Amino acid sequence: MSERYISVNGELMLANSLSISASDLAIQRGYGIFDFLVTVNGKPIFLEDHLLRFYSSAQSMHLPVTLNQKELIGAIDQLMGKNQLPNSGIRLTLTGGNSPDGYSIGNPNLIISQSPFNYQNQVFENGLKLITYEHQRQLPFIKTIDYLKAIYLQPIIKAAGADDVLYFFNGLVSECPRANFFMVTEQNEVLTPKENILHGVTRKHLLKLKGYIIREANINIEMLASAKEAFISSSTKNILPVTSIGGKQIGDGKPGPITRNLYEQFKQLKGISF
Amino acid sequence: MSERYISVNGELMLANSLSISASDLAIQRGYGIFDFLVTVNGKPIFLEDHLLRFYSSAQSMHLPVTLNQKELIGAIDQLMGKNQLPNSGIRLTLTGGNSPDGYSIGNPNLIISQSPFNYQNQVFENGLKLITYEHQRQLPFIKTIDYLKAIYLQPIIKAAGADDVLYFFNGLVSECPRANFFMVTEQNEVLTPKENILHGVTRKHLLKLKGYIIREANINIEMLASAKEAFISSSTKNILPVTSIGGKQIGDGKPGPITRNLYEQFKQLKGISF
Repeated sequence: MSERYISVNGELMLANSLSISASDLAIQRGYGIFDFLVTVNGKPIFLEDHLLRFYSSAQSMHLPVTLNQKELIGAIDQLMGKNQLPNSGIRLTLTGGNSPDGYSIGNPNLIISQSPFNYQNQVFENGLKLITYEHQRQLPFIKTIDYLKAIYLQPIIKAAGADDVLYFFNGLVSECPRANFFMVTEQNEVLTPKENILHGVTRKHLLKLKGYIIREANINIEMLASAKEAFISSSTKNILPVTSIGGKQIGDGKPGPITRNLYEQFKQLKGISF
Repeated sequence: MSERYISVNGELMLANSLSISASDLAIQRGYGIFDFLVTVNGKPIFLEDHLLRFYSSAQSMHLPVTLNQKELIGAIDQLMGKNQLPNSGIRLTLTGGNSPDGYSIGNPNLIISQSPFNYQNQVFENGLKLITYEHQRQLPFIKTIDYLKAIYLQPIIKAAGADDVLYFFNGLVSECPRANFFMVTEQNEVLTPKENILHGVTRKHLLKLKGYIIREANINIEMLASAKEAFISSSTKNILPVTSIGGKQIGDGKPGPITRNLYEQFKQLKGISF
């Protein structure tokens, strides 16, 4: 790859020259937050939603952000101007900072990184296989860097021939590690779990789409058996159909008509075309 | 401080020259393990126990360790020889490594750091105040770097005028974020939670001390009200008396005789004198 730039505490530098002190609380204690958004044709998508969540995550985790929103947008603009990657993913990371005692919050490091990213239509047509796993993420509303259980589970997911894992706890379905979950009922209602989840930006916009009743609900794990369609959503995945859960086929095992309709609506909203 | 050395993947370097790539999975996803041991008069304490747990944690989290046990002991010896800190804490950290996609395990970084550490007798006499909090740590048997909830709770602990937090879940007491928990019953039995905890090295050795029945048990949170004494244990804390839990005084609010006796026995075992 060509030399890519990164923004660290508001200063541009070459990405491969960046490194973080080993005494940063992210390395010592897994303590930090982040957010991730995409750019399409040079335009950051749902930027305000992502910034709102980023500052909210930071505040919840007691991490000061040295740049205010205007300065942060300026830093993102500057990075985009330097890197010239019109279709990209932008990650904002805020670490716990260098900790004097390995436990107290220091001066957080704010890292903005950018990498090429293009949507691939083919993934939609393939559909995803999920396994289920009983787990409740800690602090689910906050976008922390904690993906310990998700990465720990990768060999189990692979062994099952699956693509990802759907968490449930106390009988209720919650989310995938990096995506929200939706199912279509026999009455053609589109439901997404209401509680103990990360409030995804894509999820928020899907809840406003037209043509169907799309609503938050408690989804009992037994309800999955009667799902006509299912899909997951995230900023990088948009909508991806789920064609089997726990080895059981959903619908006819292909992307369903409601999922497809919402996907087309959402692409239009987001300004993506294939 | 004078220039201190650190060992990274078996190579010595100046501690302040070490930094970790921002694409390491520890920073991206809070993914890594560690262990921590102390040296007293130049001798690593319970080294074999810590190494056993370190390799076990690494294996559980699918992280390869590039040094075998003999090489790792050699690296620790080399570091100790260079730093000349006879009374110290040694931290072995194994990160997820540079991840090509921000999610898959890369080549883990093995960092051995050393810092001065001396036990302070006074802390024992003061006793600790704990609050209780309902939480179950994920993957509790594995010594991961995940202290997200513990650090998140610091302002709540401070607001309560407490020193630390005691987790419980489904009515059962488990542990403090960085220490195991023990209580003395009305029958002078010393109990420590049995399940869903990290198996502390100090805890292991305390369970073998003489003079009392010391055993693992399920401790219901209501049992705390009848505790005659309570204490926590860890490699850095040895034994520290707990004098109140959730605002309620334990015993007469001072370190009790059984706690004191076990502390004296343990100091002797460990070769510490004040």
